[in-house]
Amino acid sequence: MKFVDHLDEAAKKNNSLLCVGLDVDLNKLPADLIKSEDPFFLFNKNIIDATRDLVCAYKPNSAFYEMYGLPGISSLMRTIDYIHEQGLPVILDAKRGDVGHSSAAYAKAAFQAFKSDAVTVNPYMGYDSVQPFIEYREKGVFILCLTSNAGFRDFQKSGSGEPLYKSVARHVKEWDHFGNCGLVVGATKPEELKEIREIAGDMPLLIPGVGAQDGDLAAAVKYGINKQGLRAVINSSRSILYAADPRIEAKKLRDEINQWR
Amino acid sequence: MKFVDHLDEAAKKNNSLLCVGLDVDLNKLPADLIKSEDPFFLFNKNIIDATRDLVCAYKPNSAFYEMYGLPGISSLMRTIDYIHEQGLPVILDAKRGDVGHSSAAYAKAAFQAFKSDAVTVNPYMGYDSVQPFIEYREKGVFILCLTSNAGFRDFQKSGSGEPLYKSVARHVKEWDHFGNCGLVVGATKPEELKEIREIAGDMPLLIPGVGAQDGDLAAAVKYGINKQGLRAVINSSRSILYAADPRIEAKKLRDEINQWR
Repeated sequence: MKFVDHLDEAAKKNNSLLCVGLDVDLNKLPADLIKSEDPFFLFNKNIIDATRDLVCAYKPNSAFYEMYGLPGISSLMRTIDYIHEQGLPVILDAKRGDVGHSSAAYAKAAFQAFKSDAVTVNPYMGYDSVQPFIEYREKGVFILCLTSNAGFRDFQKSGSGEPLYKSVARHVKEWDHFGNCGLVVGATKPEELKEIREIAGDMPLLIPGVGAQDGDLAAAVKYGINKQGLRAVINSSRSILYAADPRIEAKKLRDEINQWR
Repeated sequence: MKFVDHLDEAAKKNNSLLCVGLDVDLNKLPADLIKSEDPFFLFNKNIIDATRDLVCAYKPNSAFYEMYGLPGISSLMRTIDYIHEQGLPVILDAKRGDVGHSSAAYAKAAFQAFKSDAVTVNPYMGYDSVQPFIEYREKGVFILCLTSNAGFRDFQKSGSGEPLYKSVARHVKEWDHFGNCGLVVGATKPEELKEIREIAGDMPLLIPGVGAQDGDLAAAVKYGINKQGLRAVINSSRSILYAADPRIEAKKLRDEINQWR
């Protein structure tokens, strides 16, 4: 099944546009988990078990696993397998991108070695750095467009003529021959999100910055969705992972999102 | 020792600005190595043993190890340890970059888990995505500026006013409070390399695209070096790794580079 169909299916089944970001933090894990044989995986498994009927996807961020070396990376792989056992799609947040033959190796890593269903990619190096990912037609490729951090001002919104983020959105729309591209747009930028949805047509938009980063949820949903009320993947990580009750928190956020669809 | 001092020391000791890119390709390895317990590491070890008195650094590209999953990543770690045993610096070519707290995790991965001495970073997300790397004052941070692939035209050189690559060079110069930043500039762009060296002052420039990518070597050296004839890290990967005799090829390229210093 194509990634976008899998995403739509999960969104309809769970009546949810919520994506839970699995950005594990050893310092925030309960003591009994830290002593276990695979704390990262077990922490993720608990979160997945508590939320699997409330989400459209999970998004582990590779950084938080790589920082623990081989054991961390092994936990990431186990986590991806476990999400697949629940029938849900995995967006590997890796923000990769390199010259063509190196990007081909990164695509192979993300889609074959790590078995993710979609991956985030950095557009700085242009078409031939993104194209090897797009070649995996069944997979999804979310290209960074306008990000939710403070540094978006330095390059994405700078320059005289058309700002970089808009040029990226237009280019990605052109590159999307196989209907498997998407864009990453921070929830913290509602007006630009509206413009980007207009450029993007039906492409899925991955929208981080809700919750801990305090984006405007109502605007993120209203401007992020397509005409069918789908294709906005609203990500929250820390506000759910470290909530007193992650299930209650996820349900609350899912329902809030649905209010604005 | 600070990365840049380690780099200068190796460049002087081996009278070399050559960096060998360790981008291993399973399809190009000799049959006897493929059957060994750790083909990637043993291939790299052979290359390192043949060239360690001819280079100023080694640059493994993470993509080519990640694509083989845990065994590949384990070989990368072994390779980095082995380069350190030879007293030489390692530039991990990883092109990472994310929102601040995720970039902090990537920096920890590159410098602590993988023990690299320097890393390549993508500037698309702006200052707070690069800053966590810069915080490791003893380490080197090479930020993508003008790359050697065809896609550089899409964003790096586009726009009406100042082109993006130049804005990146200027920003990085401002961010370089601790004297540990560098820039990645393709050897395929000699005129821009000259401009970038003027902006960069004494910052090290990592210059890929020599050899297989056919950049102009003379110009890359002349315009890449600083006034002391240092701080240009001229990378070649495939043309050395898969030469009939990697040592002869590396020596030839080192000597050619020195002709233009």
